[in-house]
Amino acid sequence: MKRRSFLAGGAAAAGAGLATAARAQGEPAIRWRMASSFPKSLDNIFGAAEHLAARVKAITNGQFEIRVFAAGEIVPGFEVLPACGQGTVQCGQTQGFYYIGKNKAFAFDSALPFGLNARMQNAWLYFGGGLELTRELYKEHNTINFPAGNSGAQMGGWWRQEVGSVADLRGRKVRIPGIAGEIMARLGAVPQSIPGSDIYPALERGTIDAAEWVGPYDDEKLGFHRVAPHYYFPGWWEGSSCLSFIVNLKEWAGLPPAYREAFETAAAEANVRMVAAYDAKNPPALARLVQEGVKLHPYPKDVMTAALKAANELYEEEAATNPVFRRFYQSWKPFRYAQYQWYRVAEASFSNFMAGQHLSPK
Amino acid sequence: MKRRSFLAGGAAAAGAGLATAARAQGEPAIRWRMASSFPKSLDNIFGAAEHLAARVKAITNGQFEIRVFAAGEIVPGFEVLPACGQGTVQCGQTQGFYYIGKNKAFAFDSALPFGLNARMQNAWLYFGGGLELTRELYKEHNTINFPAGNSGAQMGGWWRQEVGSVADLRGRKVRIPGIAGEIMARLGAVPQSIPGSDIYPALERGTIDAAEWVGPYDDEKLGFHRVAPHYYFPGWWEGSSCLSFIVNLKEWAGLPPAYREAFETAAAEANVRMVAAYDAKNPPALARLVQEGVKLHPYPKDVMTAALKAANELYEEEAATNPVFRRFYQSWKPFRYAQYQWYRVAEASFSNFMAGQHLSPK
Repeated sequence: MKRRSFLAGGAAAAGAGLATAARAQGEPAIRWRMASSFPKSLDNIFGAAEHLAARVKAITNGQFEIRVFAAGEIVPGFEVLPACGQGTVQCGQTQGFYYIGKNKAFAFDSALPFGLNARMQNAWLYFGGGLELTRELYKEHNTINFPAGNSGAQMGGWWRQEVGSVADLRGRKVRIPGIAGEIMARLGAVPQSIPGSDIYPALERGTIDAAEWVGPYDDEKLGFHRVAPHYYFPGWWEGSSCLSFIVNLKEWAGLPPAYREAFETAAAEANVRMVAAYDAKNPPALARLVQEGVKLHPYPKDVMTAALKAANELYEEEAATNPVFRRFYQSWKPFRYAQYQWYRVAEASFSNFMAGQHLSPK
Repeated sequence: MKRRSFLAGGAAAAGAGLATAARAQGEPAIRWRMASSFPKSLDNIFGAAEHLAARVKAITNGQFEIRVFAAGEIVPGFEVLPACGQGTVQCGQTQGFYYIGKNKAFAFDSALPFGLNARMQNAWLYFGGGLELTRELYKEHNTINFPAGNSGAQMGGWWRQEVGSVADLRGRKVRIPGIAGEIMARLGAVPQSIPGSDIYPALERGTIDAAEWVGPYDDEKLGFHRVAPHYYFPGWWEGSSCLSFIVNLKEWAGLPPAYREAFETAAAEANVRMVAAYDAKNPPALARLVQEGVKLHPYPKDVMTAALKAANELYEEEAATNPVFRRFYQSWKPFRYAQYQWYRVAEASFSNFMAGQHLSPK
C-alpha cells in the first residue's frame, strides 16, 4: 500500500463540489467492461459485481466506470478467464474451478471437495499464503485475481429417488461438474455436464437422476423441487465456493494507483457481503421449500466417507504429476488440518450448541 | 450510492501522474483522528484500523488521512463513543457493548451471550435490518456506525480450578464484563471488572478465580496459561464479537461523497479481513498453548444450559422495560432462530463432518 506525504498541509476541508469539479477535470476517465460467468438470475452473485462497479464509480466521482455483462452477453460464461487474459474485456467475475481444464490447481481458488468452509477459505487466501499462490497461477494467464464473494456451504442437490447408501449411486446420472464429477464417477455415478437452464427439463424427463446447483435461495427459483423432491445436504464438493474478480494484467498496471486501491477494496467488500446475502436469504427459502413438501436428507455416512476417500486419493494422484497442484496442496492441506482442529473448539462448540437448542422463533 | 453521468467521454486513460497532480491541487485535504478502544497489542484489531486508514489514504492519493490512536492515548478506551459524538475525535474504532450503560441495546451491535456467530452477525447487519436499527441508536449519540471486523467465537476463559458443574461457579470471582457478567452473577459467580493489564497478577495471586479475554492468539501474549491452566470453551457470551468504526455525524456529513464511499468500503474490507486474520492465527497459537500444558475443557452442559436460560430471561426482562432493546430484540430473535435452523443443514453438516475426520496434517 502506498503512503504518500501530504502536499497540502492543514486539515482545511473544501466543499465536496470543488473536489468533484477538480476530479472531473484532471483525472483519467476510464471505462472497463466486466464479463461475468454468471446470469443475472443469480442475483447475489451478479449483484456483487454491480455493487463493486457502483462503489468504484462513486469512489472516483464517476471517473472509473465498469460495466458488467452477464454470461453470454459478450463472453461465454466459462471463457471469462481467457477473454480477460487476452484483453477482450478488462476484467471479469468468475470462479477458478471453471478452468481446471487448464490446471486443476485453479480449484484451490474457489472450492475443492471436502475443502475449507467460507471463513477458512478467506483465512487461507488473505493470511495463509493462498492469494500469493493463486496469483502466480492467474499470472500465467495474464490476469490478477481478487477474492470476491462466497456462497457458503452449498446443498447436495436434488434427487428424483432417495440415496440410501453409496451403492445407490451406481449408474445414476448426476448433473455435477468438475472435480466433484470425477469423484462421483469414482463412486459409480455417471456425471453429466449440462447448463443450468437445461437441468429442469432433464430432471423432469428423467434424462438425469439428480442435479446440484447452489442452495435454497438460488435453487428455489429454478423449481427443481417440483421434479426431484429429495434435497440432500451437504454439498460436500462445495463446503464453500469462492468467487473471484480478475483483471487483465496490462490493464491493471495501467490503472492509476488510487483506482487500483478502490477496486481491491471494493472486491473485499463484495467478498463479505455476498456470503451475508446468501446467509440472510437461504433460511426463508429453505423454509418455503420444506413447506412445499421438499424432503430434506443428509447424505448417508458411507457416501460422505467414500467420497472423502476418493477425493483424497484424487488429490494425491494429481499432486504426484502436477507440480503446481502439488505446491498449492502442500500449503492448503496442513492449513485445512489446523483449521478444522481449531474449528472444533470454540466455533463449532458454540454454534452446534445453539443449533441444538429449542430457540424461540418469535 | 451515487451514480453520476460522465463529464468526460471516451475511455482514454491519462497516466496516473496527471491524476495525482490534479487530485493534490483540487481535492480537500482532510485529516482525521481515530480513537481506538483497543491497545496496539491487540494487533488484529488495532491493525484493522490502521489498514482502513492506509486504504482510505491511498484511495484518495493521500488527501484523506486518518491517524489512529490506541486506547488511552487521546481518549480512554471506553469513552470512544462520547468522544466521537462530541467531536473530540472525528472517528473511532470500538464495540457497541462498551456502552450498555447508556442502553443495553448497544450490545446487538457487537455481541449478546448466546447470540449470532460471525457470519450470522454480518447477515443480520447487512441484510437483516440490523444496520438500520443500530444506526438509529448510534445516531442518538451523534455518530454513524460501520461493521468493522469480528473475532469469531471466543474462548471461555482461563480458570485456576476446573469447573465441573454449575454449582462450581458459586462464589467464584470471574473477570468478565457486561451482560455476560450479569449472567455469571445469576449463576452464582461474582463478576469482576478489571482492565486487561491487571488480569495476570490478579489470577496469579488468586484475587480472581478466572478471567476471559479473547482467544488463543491474543490470550497467549498475556501469558494467562502460566497462572490459570484450565482453558474453557466456548465463550458463550461472544459466539462472535463484532467491531464498529464510528464517525461523528457532522464530520460525516461534511465529507466529500467520494471520501464517504472510500471509508465505508474500507470498513467492509476490515470486516472480512479481521476474522480471517483471527482464523489464520488462532490455530497455531492454540497448538502452542496445548504443547505448554494448557488443559482444554468444554463448559459442562449444565453450565451452558443454565447460562442460556439466564440469558433469555435477562433479554425478556430488558425487552419489557426498554423499548429500544425490545425493538432490536424483535428483529434479532426470529433472525437468530432462522439462522440456526439453516445452519444445521448445509454449513454445520459439512464442517462438523470435516472436523470429525482424521485429516492429514501434512
